[in-house]
Amino acid sequence: MEKVDNLIKAQVLNQALPYIQKYHDKVVVVKYGGNAMTSPELKDAVMSDIVLLGLVGIKVVLVHGGGPEISEMLGKLGIESRFVGGLRYTDAETAEVVRMVLAGKVNKSLVSSLQHHGGKSLGLCGSDGEMIKVKKLEAGEDLGFVGEITGVDIKPITDALKCGFIPVIATVATDSEGQVYNINADTAAARIAAALGAENLILMTDIKGLLRDKNDESTLIPHVNVSDVPFLIKQGIISGGMIPKIECCVEAVRRGVSKTCIIDGRIPHSILIEILSNEGVGTLFN
Amino acid sequence: MEKVDNLIKAQVLNQALPYIQKYHDKVVVVKYGGNAMTSPELKDAVMSDIVLLGLVGIKVVLVHGGGPEISEMLGKLGIESRFVGGLRYTDAETAEVVRMVLAGKVNKSLVSSLQHHGGKSLGLCGSDGEMIKVKKLEAGEDLGFVGEITGVDIKPITDALKCGFIPVIATVATDSEGQVYNINADTAAARIAAALGAENLILMTDIKGLLRDKNDESTLIPHVNVSDVPFLIKQGIISGGMIPKIECCVEAVRRGVSKTCIIDGRIPHSILIEILSNEGVGTLFN
Amino acid sequence: MEKVDNLIKAQVLNQALPYIQKYHDKVVVVKYGGNAMTSPELKDAVMSDIVLLGLVGIKVVLVHGGGPEISEMLGKLGIESRFVGGLRYTDAETAEVVRMVLAGKVNKSLVSSLQHHGGKSLGLCGSDGEMIKVKKLEAGEDLGFVGEITGVDIKPITDALKCGFIPVIATVATDSEGQVYNINADTAAARIAAALGAENLILMTDIKGLLRDKNDESTLIPHVNVSDVPFLIKQGIISGGMIPKIECCVEAVRRGVSKTCIIDGRIPHSILIEILSNEGVGTLFN
Amino acid sequence: MEKVDNLIKAQVLNQALPYIQKYHDKVVVVKYGGNAMTSPELKDAVMSDIVLLGLVGIKVVLVHGGGPEISEMLGKLGIESRFVGGLRYTDAETAEVVRMVLAGKVNKSLVSSLQHHGGKSLGLCGSDGEMIKVKKLEAGEDLGFVGEITGVDIKPITDALKCGFIPVIATVATDSEGQVYNINADTAAARIAAALGAENLILMTDIKGLLRDKNDESTLIPHVNVSDVPFLIKQGIISGGMIPKIECCVEAVRRGVSKTCIIDGRIPHSILIEILSNEGVGTLFN
Amino acid sequence: MEKVDNLIKAQVLNQALPYIQKYHDKVVVVKYGGNAMTSPELKDAVMSDIVLLGLVGIKVVLVHGGGPEISEMLGKLGIESRFVGGLRYTDAETAEVVRMVLAGKVNKSLVSSLQHHGGKSLGLCGSDGEMIKVKKLEAGEDLGFVGEITGVDIKPITDALKCGFIPVIATVATDSEGQVYNINADTAAARIAAALGAENLILMTDIKGLLRDKNDESTLIPHVNVSDVPFLIKQGIISGGMIPKIECCVEAVRRGVSKTCIIDGRIPHSILIEILSNEGVGTLFN
Amino acid sequence: MEKVDNLIKAQVLNQALPYIQKYHDKVVVVKYGGNAMTSPELKDAVMSDIVLLGLVGIKVVLVHGGGPEISEMLGKLGIESRFVGGLRYTDAETAEVVRMVLAGKVNKSLVSSLQHHGGKSLGLCGSDGEMIKVKKLEAGEDLGFVGEITGVDIKPITDALKCGFIPVIATVATDSEGQVYNINADTAAARIAAALGAENLILMTDIKGLLRDKNDESTLIPHVNVSDVPFLIKQGIISGGMIPKIECCVEAVRRGVSKTCIIDGRIPHSILIEILSNEGVGTLFN
Repeated sequence: MEKVDNLIKAQVLNQALPYIQKYHDKVVVVKYGGNAMTSPELKDAVMSDIVLLGLVGIKVVLVHGGGPEISEMLGKLGIESRFVGGLRYTDAETAEVVRMVLAGKVNKSLVSSLQHHGGKSLGLCGSDGEMIKVKKLEAGEDLGFVGEITGVDIKPITDALKCGFIPVIATVATDSEGQVYNINADTAAARIAAALGAENLILMTDIKGLLRDKNDESTLIPHVNVSDVPFLIKQGIISGGMIPKIECCVEAVRRGVSKTCIIDGRIPHSILIEILSNEGVGTLFN
Repeated sequence: MEKVDNLIKAQVLNQALPYIQKYHDKVVVVKYGGNAMTSPELKDAVMSDIVLLGLVGIKVVLVHGGGPEISEMLGKLGIESRFVGGLRYTDAETAEVVRMVLAGKVNKSLVSSLQHHGGKSLGLCGSDGEMIKVKKLEAGEDLGFVGEITGVDIKPITDALKCGFIPVIATVATDSEGQVYNINADTAAARIAAALGAENLILMTDIKGLLRDKNDESTLIPHVNVSDVPFLIKQGIISGGMIPKIECCVEAVRRGVSKTCIIDGRIPHSILIEILSNEGVGTLFN
Repeated sequence: MEKVDNLIKAQVLNQALPYIQKYHDKVVVVKYGGNAMTSPELKDAVMSDIVLLGLVGIKVVLVHGGGPEISEMLGKLGIESRFVGGLRYTDAETAEVVRMVLAGKVNKSLVSSLQHHGGKSLGLCGSDGEMIKVKKLEAGEDLGFVGEITGVDIKPITDALKCGFIPVIATVATDSEGQVYNINADTAAARIAAALGAENLILMTDIKGLLRDKNDESTLIPHVNVSDVPFLIKQGIISGGMIPKIECCVEAVRRGVSKTCIIDGRIPHSILIEILSNEGVGTLFN
Repeated sequence: MEKVDNLIKAQVLNQALPYIQKYHDKVVVVKYGGNAMTSPELKDAVMSDIVLLGLVGIKVVLVHGGGPEISEMLGKLGIESRFVGGLRYTDAETAEVVRMVLAGKVNKSLVSSLQHHGGKSLGLCGSDGEMIKVKKLEAGEDLGFVGEITGVDIKPITDALKCGFIPVIATVATDSEGQVYNINADTAAARIAAALGAENLILMTDIKGLLRDKNDESTLIPHVNVSDVPFLIKQGIISGGMIPKIECCVEAVRRGVSKTCIIDGRIPHSILIEILSNEGVGTLFN
Repeated sequence: MEKVDNLIKAQVLNQALPYIQKYHDKVVVVKYGGNAMTSPELKDAVMSDIVLLGLVGIKVVLVHGGGPEISEMLGKLGIESRFVGGLRYTDAETAEVVRMVLAGKVNKSLVSSLQHHGGKSLGLCGSDGEMIKVKKLEAGEDLGFVGEITGVDIKPITDALKCGFIPVIATVATDSEGQVYNINADTAAARIAAALGAENLILMTDIKGLLRDKNDESTLIPHVNVSDVPFLIKQGIISGGMIPKIECCVEAVRRGVSKTCIIDGRIPHSILIEILSNEGVGTLFN
Repeated sequence: MEKVDNLIKAQVLNQALPYIQKYHDKVVVVKYGGNAMTSPELKDAVMSDIVLLGLVGIKVVLVHGGGPEISEMLGKLGIESRFVGGLRYTDAETAEVVRMVLAGKVNKSLVSSLQHHGGKSLGLCGSDGEMIKVKKLEAGEDLGFVGEITGVDIKPITDALKCGFIPVIATVATDSEGQVYNINADTAAARIAAALGAENLILMTDIKGLLRDKNDESTLIPHVNVSDVPFLIKQGIISGGMIPKIECCVEAVRRGVSKTCIIDGRIPHSILIEILSNEGVGTLFN
């Protein structure tokens, strides 16, 4: 890192003050994914940011999926995916692999990384402490063991926070019969944030944010009022894969989360900048 | 279940009283493995026993390995095992599979089962909260990423107990560089029991206990003083795979665990009978 | 006790599980009296049952009268009883004897017995901590110093429970002038149970329960809805001494006790069976 | 009460200040007996004093015997006392009567009186919470069920104090078999004071204190160092019934009680004057 | 002090009992001023009274102004006062002097005095912990930096009480820009008492109380219902400087203070007599 | 403030992480004085730094003197200073002025400033809660009411920290007779830091630190081991007013403070840089 002048250092720390104050003892849920998860450098930056936020009194909860690692493992195991209306069908065997990869590999590896950066963390999944209640998602077509969340019991999360741990949550859960379900990580993060009354839900993505013209990053929309979302969908500005993601944001805000942000996970330390400065690094919904 | 007379019911409950009293608020570590783990009926009985013990005020900690499931997964992934002096060599890829299977599949499935029986549980591994500190085991021959425990931080376990959860612990851990190590589950259970100052360490096995004549179950030795173990080894009564297992018992007792038992996991509810009655179901070491 | 098979033992313990769960941290008030109080064997069984229930996390409060011991002492002291409409008139001297026998003999003897069985108990009466507020009962005819409860302050009881003691309560109290009153033990138990928001009020009696034909024990009514009580009185099924007893049950349920049971104190361990199994041993009112 | 000038009132209250300060949160054990217990006026004054001391933050524990009431009850019951070497022999029947009178009549009547004066109190005996461990006193001659204290568990007393109650303790106890023993109240008070680490043990008597000439009240010895007691016995200044009483004082001081006083219970409010002024009202041992 | 008979001592202490009981754990706010503040003897008596009240479990909060010391310091500094409609105009320089004298001299001197009498105290002003929120008083004419209270945050006061300190409060405060304001001490005491839900607000004055005929002390009105105040003003019985003082009493009562008293600070120990006896020493408003 | 690049921001925040971690929940005592106290801009920077450190979990205690303001007030009041051996003699009148200015003006103004920057603070002096015990300093010549610290009771400071306040301490105290003493602020800060077991004592000065050549700022000695101080004095490197200041550092380290720093208060945010970076801004003693 280049040498930074003492005065600039002081100014930066000083400028972060009102934000540290604002978020003190508040909950921030970070949905972690995309490039920020696959690039070792970006991953390092995210881990370090989360530990830092914890140290200054912010209660960070890390929620993650792990798409590429699941695909890789399914490939190695020779399990072929059947697609239904463009979506992967999750049979029982696949659901088991998803759990194994998310809760056993990705989750515990994140736990280790956080601890490598000086935080204490606890790796949980939706089954631990019956945190996430789930039932089969009723969609137009049968998607197999894809779960719809029917309730969130925050006790395991708040207990972990109270005991000084950073909770890291893999988005798989089991129903009362022990059947494993895969859950969409954005949705899970939104529901967990809502149940915790979080101050902020941050969805890390691989895009700059919501763009008015999706080919021109200079057309970033920095702030969207959730009531304008239907109109933006109608206009086609929100389209494709952004629709379910932004609907998670809307859902979270409607259920009481103060604000949610879609931030660019390709920028190092984007979480830190989002939380501790007055400069957004993506699109804010509230 | 056959109809049991009210008086007999009362007598049984009543007889359990002094044992419930004795173990109240004490820690019991159960190393779970063998037939009790592979037979669904026996697994059900173990889960129900542990939940019951928790309800009557005993703090049960479940430690598990998962040999057969690891082998199965290695097989499916086409990872061939190299053997060194009869022991499986754990390369980096194998260590990752071990973690994934133990912490992601076996562990979370046990968590679900306990909750299916009415308990609240939390699935952890040695990395969570930096519970198990580990370094490369220095053996005669290089075994790869097999870990030797250098320390146990019980905070994640006691926090879980204090918050009302049954901790379920997968015996994998990471060193400070994030490298995954496989750990012998008996050893891990012994060290955890010692660190917790447990009242009892129960190792579930597929044998009746220590037999004077290994072909005759009627020669069960119900009680061994740990100071007699070297003599029994010399005599050949303790031999083969029993040696490391019983050395775990000795180690646990030496480090302060009041007693350890090798019990027959093939008998349904053997834990319950061991803890709540005056009839041992295996061999007790203290 | 006859030898019970290990499997049966395990089944019995296991079957008690959901009941232990249900009553965990709940209050159960036991009104102790009749044969269960006079037979040493039955008394022993009751004491042991209460200590056991305490150990598995149920908060038991023992409320007792002591009719036969009072009569015996009055006899020894040559105090003759005057009867008013079939009821004993309690003059000041008698009231003092009632207090002395209940609070000094019966109560402290129960305290000792519970401790002999491994529980810690505290012997209180209605005066301690001004637990039971009392005034002269206004009945058709003057019954002397028979008290009507005007209020219950549960603080001494909940304090004792919180400090780990089993409260044993003698049903005598004093008014603000220090005048001693005798109180009907069934009524006191009902009011205490209501004030504590008890899960269960158990009245131990010398009968099998409410019988449709009072000469035929096979006509036991296992369950009565309190709204049916007036009709059962009109029908003559509830009659005589059962009327005030059952009115206590009704009163307790009306004031918020989840259920009350009239159980047969002549059966050993009837409390244990009532609480920890699915087989009632008398009549349940709710 | 005569009209007292406002300034004098203020002076009196003001003068009590350093003593209230000194005793704040300290334990004072009062052995209550003699005239102060039989005269209604003196009893009223004692009760009011104890409640007042409690209100200003002093933790008072009241220990009592009840000689005259026991004798009266034994008389009414026609139980004749056998004397051994001048001391009453306590047979099993007598021991039961002692318990009944002390724990059921005297104790609960004191509880009522304290509450009549505005305090909250709890009436206990040595059996409650296994407070006083007791065995048969081995004396020169067999005295029957007279108990020697083998241990004091202060938990029931400190629990009562912590919960805001004034503990009132009857000096009877039971051994582990449930056998009732009578205990000398001075001895019990001394042992309880020692176990509690009391600041002051006050023994109320019917004499002015230790007199140099027992026929001349003007020869009161206001202060005795416990190391001088053997000499005073040898000189005959401490003699007769004063010997065991003063040996209790010596015992208490030796076991860590800061000071003990023998005060004149015939003077109204002698406790208040002893504690809250610089004028002793008897003899102080330390 | 003259010698007071032991019995009278006991009677006085005893008589104070119900009042100590009544005020136990209640808050009493004392506005300290006038002669009681300037005469060393009276000051000593007030300090001692407050420490005594604290010792018997009453939570006393001392609020003070310091008119004469302010005038003296302004004189020494040669700052001339401008008067507006008979009221002193507080310019910025004067406001600084007021703060310095009140918070630096009078306040800390009171803290020392209380500690000299055995209490532990903490000297605070309205700025500490942002206790008193203030804005410029909008009166008919501009009075400069005279503050109107817009809110009271009792946390610093209740924290001090909880930690065992007697809070001593100087009635100056700062607005969010750091500008110092002088605040009327009677008003501040009334608002603090209201915010604390005080049991009693005592205003110390140099008069006997409210007199029907202001030249005849025998016409003291011992008790006024706040609803009668407007009528008493109309009648001219409340007039001049008494009007704002009594309006503070009315305001305090209206905001929930149980009672407020105007007492004669020229009588030594008038606070003690007011609180701990049935004889008022001034006029009570409620 | 100039625009700082997001990445630099993130790097600065990130780099501060290990220091925030190191100081978490530790006590840092800042002796505030010199230019940093007289320049409004520097004062603003100090206040903001302290609030920021508090927000990230560091317990900052601010100790201050106030030389220039005292001199100014003494001048305004026409109090002439007598000098003894070059030191100002503190007569009783001067001591009163010192207290008034320090505890009433400087202290409360700092409290306001901290709150203006978003912290909650409590202004105390050595008399509050009898924090600083003091006696007349015995020096070669009589210096009047200059105090020597005989003890520090940290309760008022730790209570304030526990309740979430930043304690601001004026270095005046009173003896048990109420006599005011002036105390050297460096000494007071050192003793308070020692009593609190502080991690760091920071003395703000108007120099760059200890210089090898006092005319050449490039000769700054960044680190001194306290055992080398006598030698540095002998060499003349530590001389004049630096001697007592550095002796405070030595004293603090000897009494258990981990390290003390003399930092340059003329550099804005020097505290922040000292605590949260690896670049010292003065001389460190340990």
